[in-house]
Amino acid sequence: MKYLEKVYQYIEENREVYIDWLLKASKQPSVSTLNIGMEKMAKMVEQLLEEVDADIEYIETEGYPIVYGEIKNNNEKTLSFYNHYDVQPEDPVDEWDTEPFEPTIIDGRLFGRGTADNKGNLLARVCAVHAYQQVYGKLPVDIKFVFEGEEEVGSPNLMTFAKEHPEKMETDGFLWEGGERASDGGLDVGLGVKGICYVELVARAGNRDLHSSEAPVIENPAWRLVWALNTLKNEQEEILIDGFYDDIIPVTEEEIEFIKNIPVDEETMLKERGLSNFLHNVSGLELKKKLFLDPTCTICGIESGYTDEGSKTVLPSKAMVKIDFRLAAGQSPERVGKLLRKHLDKHGYEDIEIHSLHGIEPHRTNVKDPLVQAAIESAREVYDKEPTTIINSAGSSPMYKLLKKEPENIPGVQIGVANKDSRPHAPNENIYIEDFILGIKMTAAVMDKFSKTKE
Amino acid sequence: MKYLEKVYQYIEENREVYIDWLLKASKQPSVSTLNIGMEKMAKMVEQLLEEVDADIEYIETEGYPIVYGEIKNNNEKTLSFYNHYDVQPEDPVDEWDTEPFEPTIIDGRLFGRGTADNKGNLLARVCAVHAYQQVYGKLPVDIKFVFEGEEEVGSPNLMTFAKEHPEKMETDGFLWEGGERASDGGLDVGLGVKGICYVELVARAGNRDLHSSEAPVIENPAWRLVWALNTLKNEQEEILIDGFYDDIIPVTEEEIEFIKNIPVDEETMLKERGLSNFLHNVSGLELKKKLFLDPTCTICGIESGYTDEGSKTVLPSKAMVKIDFRLAAGQSPERVGKLLRKHLDKHGYEDIEIHSLHGIEPHRTNVKDPLVQAAIESAREVYDKEPTTIINSAGSSPMYKLLKKEPENIPGVQIGVANKDSRPHAPNENIYIEDFILGIKMTAAVMDKFSKTKE
Repeated sequence: MKYLEKVYQYIEENREVYIDWLLKASKQPSVSTLNIGMEKMAKMVEQLLEEVDADIEYIETEGYPIVYGEIKNNNEKTLSFYNHYDVQPEDPVDEWDTEPFEPTIIDGRLFGRGTADNKGNLLARVCAVHAYQQVYGKLPVDIKFVFEGEEEVGSPNLMTFAKEHPEKMETDGFLWEGGERASDGGLDVGLGVKGICYVELVARAGNRDLHSSEAPVIENPAWRLVWALNTLKNEQEEILIDGFYDDIIPVTEEEIEFIKNIPVDEETMLKERGLSNFLHNVSGLELKKKLFLDPTCTICGIESGYTDEGSKTVLPSKAMVKIDFRLAAGQSPERVGKLLRKHLDKHGYEDIEIHSLHGIEPHRTNVKDPLVQAAIESAREVYDKEPTTIINSAGSSPMYKLLKKEPENIPGVQIGVANKDSRPHAPNENIYIEDFILGIKMTAAVMDKFSKTKE
Repeated sequence: MKYLEKVYQYIEENREVYIDWLLKASKQPSVSTLNIGMEKMAKMVEQLLEEVDADIEYIETEGYPIVYGEIKNNNEKTLSFYNHYDVQPEDPVDEWDTEPFEPTIIDGRLFGRGTADNKGNLLARVCAVHAYQQVYGKLPVDIKFVFEGEEEVGSPNLMTFAKEHPEKMETDGFLWEGGERASDGGLDVGLGVKGICYVELVARAGNRDLHSSEAPVIENPAWRLVWALNTLKNEQEEILIDGFYDDIIPVTEEEIEFIKNIPVDEETMLKERGLSNFLHNVSGLELKKKLFLDPTCTICGIESGYTDEGSKTVLPSKAMVKIDFRLAAGQSPERVGKLLRKHLDKHGYEDIEIHSLHGIEPHRTNVKDPLVQAAIESAREVYDKEPTTIINSAGSSPMYKLLKKEPENIPGVQIGVANKDSRPHAPNENIYIEDFILGIKMTAAVMDKFSKTKE
């Protein structure tokens, strides 16, 4: 029997124990937004880490504690796990088919709040360590658990943790929370995310809305905002802010190869959205490159004046637009914010206010990193299928809060137990029990294979 | 004693009678939007016309009846009065200092719904005819009363009336409803109004809002609308629709002279609105020309996507803008609508929908018309002050519904009993009792002087 086979076998033989641990964790509400059950959940996470004999530290923050654990065996490599024990509120409750905090298995699928996001993953990490210990006693890598309770409220204290505890951040890589099984049955292996710079622009005129008959002589902030927006991006989707594209780290040919292999079912995607074509009729590799790599400048919302039924003759006194800039690897929300201010000033819109609402730095782990290689190899073995390596997801996640480091970022790989219909943050959140078991095996495999890689 | 002095004197001696008529009319609710008191009010108007021995006809419409009256004396000229007996709803009631339908005189000012808009004017016309008759028996001009009950709901049946009763529309001119006393104590004499073409433009994408991470490959209707709007008007406020300005009837030097004399207190206007300057720093005659003559293209409202607090990462599926085009004499909402469609198509926005919400044609009466001359002369005499002749008000009114005629429009002059703080459509609507009495005299004067003018 192969070395890892024994661990897989142990996991299979003890699946009911691990499923039970997951059921217990999913039964405990832990809604950070509403401060429901947070203390109990943190205690439960502590108990789980006791099961694997970790040295546990409760790191108090301004919000909920980070439950930190270490298992040191003088291994050459250290692997860290980042997960969170808080969940989204269960609203709207009446759209659930089961009770959100009464985890229920139906046809091999476990329904319950937090099963996919993120308790299934948190448990998969702990169970993998446990199984490995039961089979071999000693782990092949040193382990650091970083389990926070504030991910669903934006991880406001995570960066402070990283700064104040540099020794706890000494690691060779992180398995990141989240991640799904691809639709072909293989595993998605995520290496990066876009960043985000979300701003609100506001143009103002007088102290109140006026009658539109005064429009010939009174400035209209709605027009001003439209003209300003027009200077930001043209119809070819080129962002016209000086220097906007300068910091982008170009993708390598190798990375492009990975992007080629990401399955995108264009026809279904269009059909589901009620669309007849993609923007500028892109398709194939061009579409994938845009989706996973390109920065954007998106109007998420715009509002001014009278917007109800019928015709009201109003000259608005205020106009507002919400813009989401998605950032490619290399860009930063701070710098984009500064370039935007410069741009507006240069075009004569000094008066237009920029309110910064949300900033996340992009992150991308090098595909050549040993942790990536270990993850790809493990996924191939555990899922018996070529994984989909997503070098840069279209979405955003605050990976940088832990992984950003000078002179070089910490590698981070996102793998998880969710499926494409897991509905995180929504009613009927779920994972397949089988994906949970595979997730445990996958984590065990990564520990083993990572320990054997060479820099 | 001069010829008209006797009429003025009679009015003074019987002022309590006329004030009493106005109080009764203002006490009767007649809210067309809510169908409150409309029948009783129409009856009351009929009774008023009986007081002046008019031949009365109740013209039934699809809505509320037009109470039509004629007094024929084989005079050379016919003068028509257009007024309306319906009023706006009294909401918000708790912002009134008096009961809206309990007309109350405080310090010479009559408070009550409909006093300014439009019962004060309707009564002023009837009382003037009455006084003239009492003094001289025969009137100097034939009179036609067109009193409708649907002005506050957009006069939907007024044009049909004009078309179906051409004989009732045979006249040498209309005294129009509305009109105020200028701030210097003289009378505003209104000769025209801008038209309006109010449209809603809608851009659509898929069947629902998407996550903004999809923005690199999915069309954003908010951006599309912004770019489309940008083609409509530039920052120099030039409307870029081909042919938009072509139909505008140029103003004459004589008309410019009238515009010069309209008092505009620029400093107060800016201060009240919390502004430091007018659009493009215009002032003086340039400001007045723009305000009273220029067509506009005004964003009255715009909306798309997420507009509440904070940052929601939405790619909207719909974007909407409400645009108010004010039209100069010669333009028409129909033609502007057509030019707009052509413009959007030409610029590649065939998919952007135009929903026409409201159309009013502009109207301008020639300053050389005998009725205008009679009105100016009368205002000078009755108010003992040079009147302000507004050849084209900045606002809009459906004058064209009665006055549009081929080959030449019917002259219309807008004079009334309101003041600059009359608050029509708002709580505490009011007129000065003295302005009501002057309004009766003014109407009598116009009848007399108009009869003596030559074409």
